[in-house]
Amino acid sequence: MSSTSNYSTPPCAACKFLRRKCLPSCVFAPYFPPEEPIKFTTVHKVFGASNVSKLLNEIQPHQREDAVNSLAYEAEARLKDPVYGCVGAISVLQRQVLRLQKELDATNADLMRYANNNNNNNNFQYGRRMVNSGYYNYSSAWNNGISGGHNNIGTDNCDGGR
Amino acid sequence: MSSTSNYSTPPCAACKFLRRKCLPSCVFAPYFPPEEPIKFTTVHKVFGASNVSKLLNEIQPHQREDAVNSLAYEAEARLKDPVYGCVGAISVLQRQVLRLQKELDATNADLMRYANNNNNNNNFQYGRRMVNSGYYNYSSAWNNGISGGHNNIGTDNCDGGR
Repeated sequence: MSSTSNYSTPPCAACKFLRRKCLPSCVFAPYFPPEEPIKFTTVHKVFGASNVSKLLNEIQPHQREDAVNSLAYEAEARLKDPVYGCVGAISVLQRQVLRLQKELDATNADLMRYANNNNNNNNFQYGRRMVNSGYYNYSSAWNNGISGGHNNIGTDNCDGGR
Repeated sequence: MSSTSNYSTPPCAACKFLRRKCLPSCVFAPYFPPEEPIKFTTVHKVFGASNVSKLLNEIQPHQREDAVNSLAYEAEARLKDPVYGCVGAISVLQRQVLRLQKELDATNADLMRYANNNNNNNNFQYGRRMVNSGYYNYSSAWNNGISGGHNNIGTDNCDGGR
């Protein structure tokens, strides 16, 4: 009789939930530790265990942790907001970008106007570079989302631009 | 013999894909028309038909179109970028917000400095309101995502703030 048999590694959260033996080759084990059961149940509820397993097996091992975390983030967002999920966050951020860009343009215009109103000849640099060119544009995907709340979300362009 | 039997409504894209009879009560039919088969296969591949069906049945009918479109957007993003999906877009937008905010702060500082450097007494208004207070903060969810690319995505806060 070996006393170590009582100290075997506990199954990962996924295998425990799915009531299956957690083998050393388990694709879930490194990312769903037993002490974080909710992480797996959340992902499972939204994406399904088999879809997650398939996805993890299709990407490189060094990318899996990021993939699991982004899936968990999306899943949690979907459970909190079943209608928009984390797409709602994209919409909010897009509006924030537009507002900031508008504010920046107006501030630059103030600066230019102020400079023009003064006839002194000091060498103060006015008018910062405009950052429009670097604007991350999701408008093709969210044309209506930006102008009219979350209605009519487009699905034709969700390229992360990376 | 009725000649109209050849003109019955075709099954929706979901029922056609799942090879089942498309009943008038089909929850997919209004959102997955037969002429858009890819919309359903994309959503099915990422979320699974039964999860989508369950989600649609749990929300109000008037919210279902938005839900399907946001699911389709998320699914398409996940197929294009299996590691980050549309969470990558959130990360990019967050960085864009931070950059714009920094740019706006610097421009406001320029404006203030310019005003202080001039001793004339005109009544020009300088220093636009700062928009920091309205900043949509995902930092608790994306602390590391913002500063170090997409690594170590947190999952503890994905509230859309709505």
